[in-house]
Amino acid sequence: MTKERLYLYDTTLRDGQQTQGVQFSVPEKIAIAKGLDALGIDYIEGGWPGANPTDSEFFEARPDTRATFTAFGMTKRAGRSAANDEVLAGVMNAGTPAVCLVGKTHDYHVTTALGITLDENLENITASVEHMVAQGREALFDAEHFFDGYKANAPYALEAVLAAYRAGARWVVLCDTNGGTLPAEVHEITRAVIDAGIPGDRIGIHCHDDTGMAVAASLAAVLAGARQIQGTLNGLGERCGNANLTSLIPTLLLKEPFRSQFEIGVGAEQLAGLTKLSRKLDDILNRVPLRSAPYVGASAFAHKAGLHASAILKDPSTYEHIDPALVGNSRLIPMSNQAGQSNLRARLSGMGIEVDPKDPALARILDTIKEREDQGYAYDGAQASFELVARRELGLMPNFFEVKRYRVTVERRKNRYDKMVNSSEAVVVVKIGGEKKLSVSESFDAQGCDRGPVNALSKALAKDLGPYQACIDDMKLVDFRVRITQGGTEAVTRVIIDSEDGSGQRWSTVGVSANIVDASFEALLEAVQWKLIRDGAKPV
Amino acid sequence: MTKERLYLYDTTLRDGQQTQGVQFSVPEKIAIAKGLDALGIDYIEGGWPGANPTDSEFFEARPDTRATFTAFGMTKRAGRSAANDEVLAGVMNAGTPAVCLVGKTHDYHVTTALGITLDENLENITASVEHMVAQGREALFDAEHFFDGYKANAPYALEAVLAAYRAGARWVVLCDTNGGTLPAEVHEITRAVIDAGIPGDRIGIHCHDDTGMAVAASLAAVLAGARQIQGTLNGLGERCGNANLTSLIPTLLLKEPFRSQFEIGVGAEQLAGLTKLSRKLDDILNRVPLRSAPYVGASAFAHKAGLHASAILKDPSTYEHIDPALVGNSRLIPMSNQAGQSNLRARLSGMGIEVDPKDPALARILDTIKEREDQGYAYDGAQASFELVARRELGLMPNFFEVKRYRVTVERRKNRYDKMVNSSEAVVVVKIGGEKKLSVSESFDAQGCDRGPVNALSKALAKDLGPYQACIDDMKLVDFRVRITQGGTEAVTRVIIDSEDGSGQRWSTVGVSANIVDASFEALLEAVQWKLIRDGAKPV
Repeated sequence: MTKERLYLYDTTLRDGQQTQGVQFSVPEKIAIAKGLDALGIDYIEGGWPGANPTDSEFFEARPDTRATFTAFGMTKRAGRSAANDEVLAGVMNAGTPAVCLVGKTHDYHVTTALGITLDENLENITASVEHMVAQGREALFDAEHFFDGYKANAPYALEAVLAAYRAGARWVVLCDTNGGTLPAEVHEITRAVIDAGIPGDRIGIHCHDDTGMAVAASLAAVLAGARQIQGTLNGLGERCGNANLTSLIPTLLLKEPFRSQFEIGVGAEQLAGLTKLSRKLDDILNRVPLRSAPYVGASAFAHKAGLHASAILKDPSTYEHIDPALVGNSRLIPMSNQAGQSNLRARLSGMGIEVDPKDPALARILDTIKEREDQGYAYDGAQASFELVARRELGLMPNFFEVKRYRVTVERRKNRYDKMVNSSEAVVVVKIGGEKKLSVSESFDAQGCDRGPVNALSKALAKDLGPYQACIDDMKLVDFRVRITQGGTEAVTRVIIDSEDGSGQRWSTVGVSANIVDASFEALLEAVQWKLIRDGAKPV
Repeated sequence: MTKERLYLYDTTLRDGQQTQGVQFSVPEKIAIAKGLDALGIDYIEGGWPGANPTDSEFFEARPDTRATFTAFGMTKRAGRSAANDEVLAGVMNAGTPAVCLVGKTHDYHVTTALGITLDENLENITASVEHMVAQGREALFDAEHFFDGYKANAPYALEAVLAAYRAGARWVVLCDTNGGTLPAEVHEITRAVIDAGIPGDRIGIHCHDDTGMAVAASLAAVLAGARQIQGTLNGLGERCGNANLTSLIPTLLLKEPFRSQFEIGVGAEQLAGLTKLSRKLDDILNRVPLRSAPYVGASAFAHKAGLHASAILKDPSTYEHIDPALVGNSRLIPMSNQAGQSNLRARLSGMGIEVDPKDPALARILDTIKEREDQGYAYDGAQASFELVARRELGLMPNFFEVKRYRVTVERRKNRYDKMVNSSEAVVVVKIGGEKKLSVSESFDAQGCDRGPVNALSKALAKDLGPYQACIDDMKLVDFRVRITQGGTEAVTRVIIDSEDGSGQRWSTVGVSANIVDASFEALLEAVQWKLIRDGAKPV
């Protein structure tokens, strides 16, 4: 059976940029476009040339792509010809092979927001699409508010999209601009458009996640006959975001009926790079990746319940809907006081530590974990510290060095310009073999800003570890989370630190104390110890 | 037309606890249960009594609720009677009006994971449900892996759920345990169960979000005839989470066909508290609320695109699918407008500060708040600090005293018994009138335990404020929350401190800095300043 072709249209660089707090630079846009192209996306919408300096610059600097590069804009305004509309000219001048123009299809918006007649709007659509076609571009028409428009005035909404289709639009894209249309309705209205005369392979779907159903609504449109899906990586976009391509792509490739019925530009090899691409985007945006994201989240294949973990050991398909490797993700069996011994053995095995099922240390490890969790520790988010607890019970914890003492001072006072300034200074004293080493560090970053006591401690601890220095030189602290929690009867502070090394490896450690600085120091110390173990450092 | 009743079943306290990094304490479970009950949820699943100490304790301490309290467990094991299964006994002994037992319906899981015959499994289901009914409980049967089981062996999966139904289960809950079933399939298989003889008003649906479609799949089951939805607040849950009740509830109440067809336990008034409840759960978990969450996210009604924002000013329905006030959320437009100013005036009036509508300070206050929120401040949870910002712009901030400098030292070293111990010491220098006052404090509590640098600073600051001392002597720090957040381009620390005085009055202040100690000091200082204003202290 021949599969039908389904097209993916990415708007991360345009609609995705409407996300609160997101503002891409030109180099970032280039990096993302390259990533999308390597993934196998069919269309990359780069932005609105002419609307802002970044987008204009980006279109000049845009990379060569296999994907069809697309400029976004709006249909010509009333009272002038398409050729004489300077906003439209700005879009056309970007010289992309495809152009996507948004236009009104909801009668109320035509008369209220634009303040023109319904016929004028139809003329604007027709003239704009004809203009794109005459200029030799692949023409796309984004039918704004189409679903709400259809519900308000179906004949007019249909006339508007038919105008674009008859004028030669390769794709008429049905947009649920306000994001409130449910999947069943999207299905029904998409069918109505096909029944009105636009073939499904000329129809695209553009959904927003305002009810948490953008992915489902996009697939409902495909089941109704649409053959192009618009979305963004990681579901970026205005308000609640756009349809998430990072969720849609694996479903299209791996789940029935899509898997048998459709072919997309993404193959198995590119799919295996999806998790990495998703994380890379978060990295560019300096966002913490959403742990619970479908397919690509760090928790997407994490099995916390003890019963699940033991079944996973027998057969991963018992509690996994797909093999995580297909999307470049991996299985995680976190520790918590709900877990059992089989969970524990699996986790240890993943760390390269094989333990006999009868080893009494297993029970001791679980007891220690439970006891420490009662004190406020949390190990399911701190895998590296968990490994250190296990190693101590198993007698597999090397004694690399001993911290004899530390002291950290935070001061706030006026500087010589009579301005209040902070500074922090830490002294750490360690003993390595027989040798005592004193290190001192301040907490200033490259801009001279005080980053506080934990930063100073971290730098002092990592400043001179003698024979181990090569192992820790590429370590950096990438995230730091603090929570006040209950340890026994008193409130204590729990600190979780994420560290990263030059190879991109990440690990998390935990510290607990009534003293926030001391809790941080414990987590920092464990981060260093774990790295030394991973690098196979030999205790002196 | 009479509406059909649709029941909501919350499993935040059980399946939600399977979220990586989530570990509820008993007081937290109680607070969440009360919130769910106030929302109008029909069933609250509290956990698995007997499985861990927290759950057992919680069932003993559980609050009185209008909602039906439910204990979770599993069907009896083979080779013993229901009455003699001590795991099941632990669940029954919690004494809840309803009990939900999970059992196998997928043939492969029966023979592989349980290692028993298919018939033995059916007997276990029947005997367990009969046992619940005989004990006078409302019986629920969670049909684990039902959809995968149906696809593998439909007759057996149907036999298993029919066994539960015939044994008297009030609800047979179809669980998509692995989360991989798409909405259309959920619809079709739910219909098949109804066709097999279980009425829709005895069928529940339990979905997971592994393809990003748990909400859509739950609604697809309802459209097929199911009448109970299981889910969690904020979509907590193992892996990618459970069906998100926070998204489902507004859709059920506000969107067709659900709005006309069904009645749920949540009314318009409770719906207006949804955003607050969602944020409260994040607060308990010390999680940053997801800005893009449908309905309740801080960005859910944020309009960044210029075209959208100007249309919104003419008519909000142009770019909003619902009125944000219906779910207790609010519109966010990146500009200070008339609505913003009148809100501000109302808020100030509530603090006893009356401002003329024409006062230019109103715009300045909004600008300052916006600027400081960009730096990482958060004023929603820190009303007292908000009041201080407003007072500064209005020229209503008394100058009680000036902090000249402070210094805090944290040390860890061996004591004379060769034991590692911490200590913290703080010096604060203030100028009151013309007089300079130096105060020093340690951080030890009554048990001699070091409570850390913030404790030492707090004590030193409050030790001697001369003429103001009487006002602050009854102040104490009751909560302290720390979050790493984004301030401009760099990560900064936000500290929120809750203070309380002898009259039981509570207030919250916020501090932000790259230095956690300094952020804490700012919040401590504002707590003292606000108390002096409230007590009408006169600056010297």
